[in-house]
Amino acid sequence: MQVRDTSDHEAYQPVRVLTLRHEGAGSERADAVAVEAPLEVRIGGKPVTVLMRTPGHDEELVTGFLFGEGVIADADDIISITRPTDTSDTEHGNVLEVRLMVSRRVFDGDRLFYSSSSCGICGKKSIASIEVRGTPSCSNLTVSASTLSALPERLRAAQPTFTRTGGVHASGLFTADGALLAVREDVGRHNALDKLVGWALERGDVPLAERVLLVSGRVSYELVQKAVAAGIPIVAAVGAPSSYAVELAERFGITLVGFLRASGMNVYAHPDRITA
Amino acid sequence: MQVRDTSDHEAYQPVRVLTLRHEGAGSERADAVAVEAPLEVRIGGKPVTVLMRTPGHDEELVTGFLFGEGVIADADDIISITRPTDTSDTEHGNVLEVRLMVSRRVFDGDRLFYSSSSCGICGKKSIASIEVRGTPSCSNLTVSASTLSALPERLRAAQPTFTRTGGVHASGLFTADGALLAVREDVGRHNALDKLVGWALERGDVPLAERVLLVSGRVSYELVQKAVAAGIPIVAAVGAPSSYAVELAERFGITLVGFLRASGMNVYAHPDRITA
Repeated sequence: MQVRDTSDHEAYQPVRVLTLRHEGAGSERADAVAVEAPLEVRIGGKPVTVLMRTPGHDEELVTGFLFGEGVIADADDIISITRPTDTSDTEHGNVLEVRLMVSRRVFDGDRLFYSSSSCGICGKKSIASIEVRGTPSCSNLTVSASTLSALPERLRAAQPTFTRTGGVHASGLFTADGALLAVREDVGRHNALDKLVGWALERGDVPLAERVLLVSGRVSYELVQKAVAAGIPIVAAVGAPSSYAVELAERFGITLVGFLRASGMNVYAHPDRITA
Repeated sequence: MQVRDTSDHEAYQPVRVLTLRHEGAGSERADAVAVEAPLEVRIGGKPVTVLMRTPGHDEELVTGFLFGEGVIADADDIISITRPTDTSDTEHGNVLEVRLMVSRRVFDGDRLFYSSSSCGICGKKSIASIEVRGTPSCSNLTVSASTLSALPERLRAAQPTFTRTGGVHASGLFTADGALLAVREDVGRHNALDKLVGWALERGDVPLAERVLLVSGRVSYELVQKAVAAGIPIVAAVGAPSSYAVELAERFGITLVGFLRASGMNVYAHPDRITA
């Protein structure tokens, strides 16, 4: 896969902010906010979807997104991802053109992405269409409770945009020994995970049967769905899981950890992969 | 508008959870997680979209969603919202049938919702399609910094599902005196706001030119977009705003507050509505 590096975007931007105390006294100062900007994805010159994302690692995002949606089976299905030069001012830097070797999913004219989305559910039109397909994880990976407990601090230390803005989610991929392999940030938690999976796809590392995923927020349907697709056996979250996340984790053999802290954690599914 | 009350859903459900300390000691106990379940919306018997939501206030959610997408101009455009009885086990309780008096948006066959979504962006296919339409707020509403500072605690006290699960967002609507009028919770922050706007639409209270909105998390593009549609002049968030949220708030005359705490706040746009 040929990717043109286009990392000229900033993940945060300066703003002037008025800081007020509760009694009303205030002062203006410089601050930063996380950038949220639309990324238009074109296939064969035709716009197919818009992902509202934080700029940076755009190619990974598109690769991970297309994988999660079942359009590609691996990075080799993509011939190239390039940034068109004939875009308008509004579009500048926010359009990616994808050339596919093969599409693993049957295109229904130009309607494929009308019924898919970056959050794994929006735009789908019937309950039948959101059924998750995949095979239960049979990974023998284990991780100790003490190793898991150390991960949130490691992820937190590797989130430069969060440090600046307090406004982005992160997804991090770790070894069973607790070594951080990669972290991606985004205003959308699904995007942060798509970027991470895109990174792994570009390295030929999927399925990620020997890896632990940590997400900075809550864990819901779409994140477990993406973990199933990427073959990740252990999913941990700093926040709470939803009922659907627990159900999917149980069904697909994924160890699901929530409220992960330095002091401990809650395990919602398949605790057998966690050792004392 | 005729609505059949169907509040037989639970917003949270019991789970067995294994609580582990970092050194590996653990015990199983009963806990609760927020319910995340798909709601299929049908118009004229045809599935048009699925909203992944926390059950409860489903009719408000659909009303607010259709309003935010520009399909209806007020609640009177809806003849009825009913729950079909001929659903499968999977669909049971998770399908709503909407009958519209009029559709304010031109339907392109059955493709309207292919290019829209519950998060205000997913499924849209070009940058041009996400342009926000609306008129800048000319509301003369003012609120004092001390009143604003008291709102997060009031919202927090009115979040029963968050108290049980730690896993849902909330949106609350307040008067300029700080009185809480309504609060809605959901795993999706956009859904919580859609439910709140749906509640107001059913009462004939939109535009909400005299109201203050507080959201429990971060504030991004889709929340400000929905506030613009509902005519809310002051939007406050416990979390950070995104760059696009700040841009929209500036453009549409909305006072945007972030990091709202008992001790103070940051004001990102139109601070003139906040008094000492």
